Amino acid sequence: MTDLLLRDARLWGADTLTDLLIRDGVVAATGPGLPAGDAPVEGLGGKLLLPGFVDAHAHVDKTMWGGPWVPHNAGPGLAGKIRNGVESRPALGLPSVDYITALLQQMVVSGTTHVRTHVDVDTAMGLAAVEAVREALGRLGDRITAELVAFPQAGLLTSPGTAELMDEALAAGVDIVGGIDPAGLENDPIRHLDVVFGLAGKHGAGVDIHLHDGGPLGVWQYDLIIERAKALGLAGKVTISHGYALAEVAPAVQERVIADLAAAGVSLATVAPAGAAPLPLAALREAGVPVGAGNDGVRDLWSPYGNGDMLERALFLAQRSRFVRDEEIEIALEAATYGGARVSGRRAGYVPGDPGDFVVVDARTPAEAVCVRPVRSLVVKSGRVVARDGRLV
Amino acid sequence: MTDLLLRDARLWGADTLTDLLIRDGVVAATGPGLPAGDAPVEGLGGKLLLPGFVDAHAHVDKTMWGGPWVPHNAGPGLAGKIRNGVESRPALGLPSVDYITALLQQMVVSGTTHVRTHVDVDTAMGLAAVEAVREALGRLGDRITAELVAFPQAGLLTSPGTAELMDEALAAGVDIVGGIDPAGLENDPIRHLDVVFGLAGKHGAGVDIHLHDGGPLGVWQYDLIIERAKALGLAGKVTISHGYALAEVAPAVQERVIADLAAAGVSLATVAPAGAAPLPLAALREAGVPVGAGNDGVRDLWSPYGNGDMLERALFLAQRSRFVRDEEIEIALEAATYGGARVSGRRAGYVPGDPGDFVVVDARTPAEAVCVRPVRSLVVKSGRVVARDGRLV
Repeated sequence: MTDLLLRDARLWGADTLTDLLIRDGVVAATGPGLPAGDAPVEGLGGKLLLPGFVDAHAHVDKTMWGGPWVPHNAGPGLAGKIRNGVESRPALGLPSVDYITALLQQMVVSGTTHVRTHVDVDTAMGLAAVEAVREALGRLGDRITAELVAFPQAGLLTSPGTAELMDEALAAGVDIVGGIDPAGLENDPIRHLDVVFGLAGKHGAGVDIHLHDGGPLGVWQYDLIIERAKALGLAGKVTISHGYALAEVAPAVQERVIADLAAAGVSLATVAPAGAAPLPLAALREAGVPVGAGNDGVRDLWSPYGNGDMLERALFLAQRSRFVRDEEIEIALEAATYGGARVSGRRAGYVPGDPGDFVVVDARTPAEAVCVRPVRSLVVKSGRVVARDGRLV
Repeated sequence: MTDLLLRDARLWGADTLTDLLIRDGVVAATGPGLPAGDAPVEGLGGKLLLPGFVDAHAHVDKTMWGGPWVPHNAGPGLAGKIRNGVESRPALGLPSVDYITALLQQMVVSGTTHVRTHVDVDTAMGLAAVEAVREALGRLGDRITAELVAFPQAGLLTSPGTAELMDEALAAGVDIVGGIDPAGLENDPIRHLDVVFGLAGKHGAGVDIHLHDGGPLGVWQYDLIIERAKALGLAGKVTISHGYALAEVAPAVQERVIADLAAAGVSLATVAPAGAAPLPLAALREAGVPVGAGNDGVRDLWSPYGNGDMLERALFLAQRSRFVRDEEIEIALEAATYGGARVSGRRAGYVPGDPGDFVVVDARTPAEAVCVRPVRSLVVKSGRVVARDGRLV
């Protein structure tokens, strides 16, 4: 079933209610009083119809969602968390297809229709996490689409053999090459980026680099990444994840880097962490730099928090950006919808040809949806109802 | 009905399941296999039984909960918000007994059994907000207890006549004298505090002062308040709300002020705002300073955010404090339970004589309850079941 008529929908940005017709999984028409033909009809009664949420930065392979409560016990800093992740994983049965499936289901009932998930590739477990994520996605049966990032969480220079495994993952269809703190963790930024962009070139893949390094060190690596994206003609295919540094440097530097990101077609992904200054969303928006929001890890060895809900993530992003006006809060919601789609090179919206991916929320405005975060009335993936009232269909 | 036997409860801090018997609204006994006698029985099946949540800092009189969505439109800064609140109130029908009732109901189903709410007293509306809150509380019919703070939101020196209205409110049974930024807003800190503490002395009331002023200016006012609490023998009856300054000064100053707070019996209330450094909860706890958490305003002319849920507030407090370990997350939950109770001079817990105020959550540990925030299975006020599965009983 990939045809669906959504009746009496309140579209983001429209003043009056309308119908929206999905044919063969994509938007076919909008307007009042559309004939349904043989398409099933869902009456929305004026509820808000938002583009399906896109989680632009997830780590579903690490999750313990649906499993036992495991108190956080990692050592301090990035290195402590990396070590703890690798060491504690086997005894907890991670990666677990069951936990990943449970989290993906939770994401679906929360309105997420597409996810970009980083998946650990390391010498201790090879491609086991990639396989586990793929098996879980299979269990979800097209209720959500995903793109996978071959992510060298434990380092690719500091952990020899990882690049070869990433190469293997990409050859087997993984979509994107990951990277992590070329300077701060890998201590050899040029060679790290050479490997990452080399793999991208070899496989025609995109790039998504975790960049926690702050201030001038982080911004210098922005420049290195931007330079390579331009030189290699990778506009629209390179993402910097986290990228805290942009929020930490002087306004003039920030302004210059934002212009460079826009010129190179490099996007950002943020998880709106409580402990870092928020990215300058308004300025990025004005410059046309795509920004996607993501839930990051959800209840894993890295953090006990998270629930896979992009509407909650939009709230965090709005609050941490000190947004209070509706038009500001909508910028945060954009990161959870249109922005994430742009990061992934996907369309999103109400125009014919846009994917039939939608979420229905009992709210009168997008800002109210973010503030109240009601149970999702309906989630539609490629024209198919996949969740209703917070439960999987 | 004020007798109740809670069977197979998981108590915070206990390893095994137990029963808890409430007689005449207060805890009578705990232990396995307690005889119910003629008390109704609720089987908890191992769910977590937490002390009822205490919202130590609310502004229920301002809420538009259950009303239309009103986009935020206040001018910048504290003065802009104060002016907007006073000017926009009448056209929106504020204060509204219906909205206040709706919010109090939301608080009850979220597990809050006691609330300290500031209530605006100003020359534009006199005691109308006090009367509205009291009428709403009456509608709730003892499902929640409340203490009211006569709050000079618009200033009491800068807005002559306010002190007289506060005097009137206190004579009519309002519990606590409020104050606000004696320096930053009122510009006459000594006289402001003289009026506030004068009213407290006259009525035998407690004191709760909003202190947004930061850094050295804020800490200087901590000292003024502490000095008066000590001189007037008001240990246990004085609270500083927000008090951002404590998080902003040098460690040695912070340490000295915390010791002074402890010695004077002055408590703190925090709403864990996204835009301010979090109070040093661990150090305050070690020194024995009571810290209560509160939701602050919920969907009002000051902020579009909030939902009255203290478990969510505990999450915000934990995340903004960068807590990740279970024992850290429990410090945040303490502020939403025991800490708030101490701020209000109330008992809380599982010991005979403690109030029969409890909330039941489907979680295996207190930290999991904070991270997952499940729908509240049961809320018990003075031994009476007042909410079940997120709905008012």
